[in-house]
Amino acid sequence: MKIALAQYNFVIGDFEYNTNVIRLAIKNAKSAGAELVVFAELALTGYPPRDFLEFDEFIRKSEVAMHSLAAECEGIAAIVGGPSRNLTGGGKPLFNSAWFLSNGKVTKLFHKSLLPNYDVFDEYRYFEPAIDFDVVEMNGKKLAVTVCEDIWNVDEIPMYKRFPLDEVKTLNPEIIINISASPFHYNQGKLRRNVLRETALKYGLPVIYVNHVGAQTELIFDGDSMACDSGGNIRESLPLFTEALKIVEIDQSWYNNNPAAAIEIDEESRDIALIHDALVMGIRDYFGKMGFKKAILGLSGGIDSAVTLALAAEALGHQNVRGVMLPSGFSSQHSIDDALALAKNLDCPHDLIPIAEAFKAFENTLDPLFAGLPFGLTEENLQARTRAVILMAMSNKFGYILLNTSNKSEAAVGYGTLYGDMCGGISVLGDVYKTDVFRLARYINRDREIIPVNSITKPPSAELRPDQKDSDSLPEYDLLDKILFQYIEKRKGPREIEALGYDVVLVKRVLSMVNSNEWKRYQTPPILRVSPKAFGMGRRMPIVGKYIG
Amino acid sequence: MKIALAQYNFVIGDFEYNTNVIRLAIKNAKSAGAELVVFAELALTGYPPRDFLEFDEFIRKSEVAMHSLAAECEGIAAIVGGPSRNLTGGGKPLFNSAWFLSNGKVTKLFHKSLLPNYDVFDEYRYFEPAIDFDVVEMNGKKLAVTVCEDIWNVDEIPMYKRFPLDEVKTLNPEIIINISASPFHYNQGKLRRNVLRETALKYGLPVIYVNHVGAQTELIFDGDSMACDSGGNIRESLPLFTEALKIVEIDQSWYNNNPAAAIEIDEESRDIALIHDALVMGIRDYFGKMGFKKAILGLSGGIDSAVTLALAAEALGHQNVRGVMLPSGFSSQHSIDDALALAKNLDCPHDLIPIAEAFKAFENTLDPLFAGLPFGLTEENLQARTRAVILMAMSNKFGYILLNTSNKSEAAVGYGTLYGDMCGGISVLGDVYKTDVFRLARYINRDREIIPVNSITKPPSAELRPDQKDSDSLPEYDLLDKILFQYIEKRKGPREIEALGYDVVLVKRVLSMVNSNEWKRYQTPPILRVSPKAFGMGRRMPIVGKYIG
Repeated sequence: MKIALAQYNFVIGDFEYNTNVIRLAIKNAKSAGAELVVFAELALTGYPPRDFLEFDEFIRKSEVAMHSLAAECEGIAAIVGGPSRNLTGGGKPLFNSAWFLSNGKVTKLFHKSLLPNYDVFDEYRYFEPAIDFDVVEMNGKKLAVTVCEDIWNVDEIPMYKRFPLDEVKTLNPEIIINISASPFHYNQGKLRRNVLRETALKYGLPVIYVNHVGAQTELIFDGDSMACDSGGNIRESLPLFTEALKIVEIDQSWYNNNPAAAIEIDEESRDIALIHDALVMGIRDYFGKMGFKKAILGLSGGIDSAVTLALAAEALGHQNVRGVMLPSGFSSQHSIDDALALAKNLDCPHDLIPIAEAFKAFENTLDPLFAGLPFGLTEENLQARTRAVILMAMSNKFGYILLNTSNKSEAAVGYGTLYGDMCGGISVLGDVYKTDVFRLARYINRDREIIPVNSITKPPSAELRPDQKDSDSLPEYDLLDKILFQYIEKRKGPREIEALGYDVVLVKRVLSMVNSNEWKRYQTPPILRVSPKAFGMGRRMPIVGKYIG
Repeated sequence: MKIALAQYNFVIGDFEYNTNVIRLAIKNAKSAGAELVVFAELALTGYPPRDFLEFDEFIRKSEVAMHSLAAECEGIAAIVGGPSRNLTGGGKPLFNSAWFLSNGKVTKLFHKSLLPNYDVFDEYRYFEPAIDFDVVEMNGKKLAVTVCEDIWNVDEIPMYKRFPLDEVKTLNPEIIINISASPFHYNQGKLRRNVLRETALKYGLPVIYVNHVGAQTELIFDGDSMACDSGGNIRESLPLFTEALKIVEIDQSWYNNNPAAAIEIDEESRDIALIHDALVMGIRDYFGKMGFKKAILGLSGGIDSAVTLALAAEALGHQNVRGVMLPSGFSSQHSIDDALALAKNLDCPHDLIPIAEAFKAFENTLDPLFAGLPFGLTEENLQARTRAVILMAMSNKFGYILLNTSNKSEAAVGYGTLYGDMCGGISVLGDVYKTDVFRLARYINRDREIIPVNSITKPPSAELRPDQKDSDSLPEYDLLDKILFQYIEKRKGPREIEALGYDVVLVKRVLSMVNSNEWKRYQTPPILRVSPKAFGMGRRMPIVGKYIG
C-alpha cells in the first residue's frame, strides 16, 4: 500500500491557506501514485487553535473546509486532522478527530481518546475523549487510525486508564496510522522513536506517523514524520524543520521484523545542534506568521545578545537584523568592541547610541525625590529601562520587532529588569540555560569566529555598576543551572535536591529566587520552547503564595 | 445536627499558616458545640496551587499537615479539602479530595469526580476523577460529601457524562455537603444559588456549601458560603469578602420545604457594588500576600487612574497609595487640576513630575536616526514609556508596587503602550469595560465627590498629541463595549455579532483589533477577574495565527 506522509507548516485559523496546502498535497500525492495521504493532527485549523475552538463560527468554517477537501478525494483517500462536533448529548462539545476522506466525501471519523492535559497541553479544555474505536478498510487493508497521545500511554504507571490500541487490536488492523501535533524539545525525537518502537512491537504492526512542522509562537514543531516496520525499525523518515511530502510503500517486508534496539534517553544531554535549528525556525516562523521581516535587539558585548543576533541573522537574513549598542558610563570598551566586532562578522546593520543623556535626564527629574539616597538597584534598572525605551522607539518608528535576549538561568532567578532587558516580542533564549548558551556560541563558531571569543570567555556581567559580575549576585552558572534543572525540569523539592549533594542554604536560596520571581516572568514575552519544561504556558505557578518546599 | 461552616482566606503553599487557621477553627467550632466543621476545597494547600501539585515534596507536606489536623479532631469531625494520592496504578497521580477527619484520624476520603477544565480551571492537569462514591455516617446522619463541580453538572446539554449525586443518592444520604473553590464574577452568586436550589430540589435534601474567601492574584473568592433547605431556600449565609465561622443546625424543619423561586441570570447586568468590593479585596490581598504595603500609580486626570486610586486607597489606606502626575507638553491644565483634586479628596500623597526633560533627552538621543520623520505613534509611546520608567524608579527606590490602570476595553483593542501605561504589578480594571469604569466612578462618588466630576464627564483622551480623543481611534465606548462583550464574554463570531444589528465593517475592525493584540496582552500584569471571561489564564488565544472569523 502506498501512503504519502504530508508534513506541513500550517497557519492557525487560516482556513484558506491551510486548505490550499492540503489540496495541493492531495493532488501531488495522487499524481505520484499514493493510495492514501496522511496529514497531521488538527492540520486544518493549525495547532494549537486554543480557545478559537470555543467559537461556533470557527468550527463551522473548519467543517466547511473539510467537506470541500473531501470533494477532492477521488482516486485517493486522505486523513486530515480537524475538530468534529460531539453530538452524543453530553460532555465537551468537540472531538479531536482524524477525518477519513474518500470517494469525494467524509467516510469516517476517528476520535482521539487520550487527551493530553499537562505541560503546554490543554486538550480536556475543548475535547471529549473517544469511547468507541474502529478501523477503516481500504484497498483490502485494515487501518487503525489514531491521534497522537493515543499511542503514548507507555509509562510504567500509565497516565491514562485506557489503552486505545488494545481495543482496536481486536478488529485486526494491518497498519497503524498516527497523526500528531508533537512539539520539539531536545529529547522529543528519541522519545518519539521509542514510542513508535514500543507500539510497533506490542501490536506487531507497521506504524505511520505524521507530525506538524513549523513554529507557532513558543511551540516549535520539528516534523520528524516517519514510518517504522513491525519491529519498530525506522524505514523512512521526513526531514526535520522542513516541509515535505513522501510516499512510503508498505509491503510484506514491513511485517515480522526484528525488534529495533531500545533508545536511551539521557535527560541531561542536550543536542545543541538540534536546539540551534529549532530556535532558528522559531524566530523565522514568529516573524513570518506575524507578518514582520525585521528584528532589532540590544547588543551588550555579552554572550546572550551575541547568540541571539547570530540566530536571528540566520533566521531572517543578516540585513534584516539590527544590533544596537547602548553604552552607559559602566560599559567597558571591550564590550563595545566585542559588540561591534560581532555585528561586523555577521554583516548586520548596527548603531552605537549612548544612553548618558537620557539617563542623566531621569536622574535630574528624580533628584528632588532621590536626593541623598545612594546609587543602587533603582539606578541599575533605570539604565536597562532607558535602553528599552530607545529600542522600542526604533522598533515603533521603523517597524522592527524587538528580540528578547534573556536566558533561562536569568529568567529563573529574576536576574533582569522588567520593562528593561526583559522586553521583546519573543524570547529567543528564555528556555536555554546560560551554560547551554555558551555551547550554542561555540556551535555558532564551529566554522569561523562569528561571536568574538572574548564574549565567550570573559566573566558574565550586566555592567550596570562599576566592576559588576553576575557571580556577585548569583552562584556560578555551572552550579546554578544544575540546581535549576532539578527544580524546573525534574520538579524536585529542596530536600530531594539537597540529597543529590548540593548545599542546603544554596538550594533554598535558588528555589526562593525562582518562586519569588513568578510575578516578573508573568509579564515577559513568549519563550521559544526547546526543553520539556519551559517557562510560560507549560509551567503554571501561583504568583501570590508562600512555598519554598 | 450542628455543622460549622468555615470560610477562610488561605495562603497558597503556606502549610504552617493554613494549618493554624484550620486548627483554630476546629477548636472554636468544637467549643461552640458543632459536631462537624467544614472547610473549602483544597483549603489546606490554598487554591489554586497550580503546578506545585506536581511536586512530590509539596504533596508530602500536605499529607503531613492533614494528619496533624486529624489528630486534633477529637469530639468533633472535620471535612478539609486537600490533594490525595491516586494509588490505583494508573491515571493522573492525584485526587482532589475532601478528607473526613474524626476520632483523631483520617477516617474517609471523598474524591472529586467532575474536574473543571475550562476558563481559569485546569483540574485535569493534576487530578484523576473519582470512580466510586460513598457516604459517611456520623451521629446517626448519612452525609454525601462532594467537591465543588460535582453538583454543577446542570446545563441543558451537560458538560459531563456523569452525575455523581445520582450515584450517591442510592446510598440514601440525608445532607449534601459541598466544599468549593468558586471564584467571584458578577453573576457567580446568582449562578451558585441556582445550582444549590436545583441540587436541593432534585435530591430533596439540604445542602451545606463552603467556599474560599480572599484573592489569589487574579482570582477573587467572595466566600458566600451558605446552607439551604430541601427546597433550595437559603436559610443561612456567610458574609461576602470576609472570613467567618458560622454554626448551622440542621433539624427536621430543613426537610420537605417549598421550592425556592428560580433565580434569573441577566448576563449583561453587572452589579457595580459587588465589583467594587471584589476589586478592593483583590488589591488588598495581592499586596498582603506579596508582602507589600504601598502602591504607586500614575494619575492622568482621567477616569481610569482616578477609579484605581480610589479603590487602592480603600484597600490599602489612603496614606499608602501615592499618585504621581507626570504631565507632558500635551497634558491639559484641567487634567493636572483634576488629578490634584482627586489626590486631595482622598488625602493621598502625590507628586507632580513633568516628563519634559527626559522626553527631550530621548528626542535628542534619537534625533540622528529620526531626523526629518514626522511626530507619530513612536513619540506617543515614548511619553507613556518615559512615565513608566519614572514610576518604576520610584517603585524600586521606595518599595512601592505599581498599579496598572488599563481598562478592559483598552486591553481588548490594544489601545495602550506596552512597557508604558500597560506596566504594573497587578491590573485593577483590566476586567472592567470603560462603560463600567464610569459606573464604578459614580458608585465611588455615591456619598461625596471623591472623583472630580470633570474626570467623569470630559471625553476620554490619552493626551499624547494635541487635542487627541479616544474616539479619534476607537468607536464610542458605548458601542465598542457591546461588541467586545459579544466577542469576549459570549464568544460570538463576526457573522453572529452582525446579526445582532451591528455594522459589519465595524465588527470586523473591532475583532481584528482584539485578535492582533494578543501579543501585547501576553505581557501585561495579572488582571483582577470580575467577569466570567477575563483576559489572562481564562482566555487562551494563539498569538501567531490568522483568524478574524
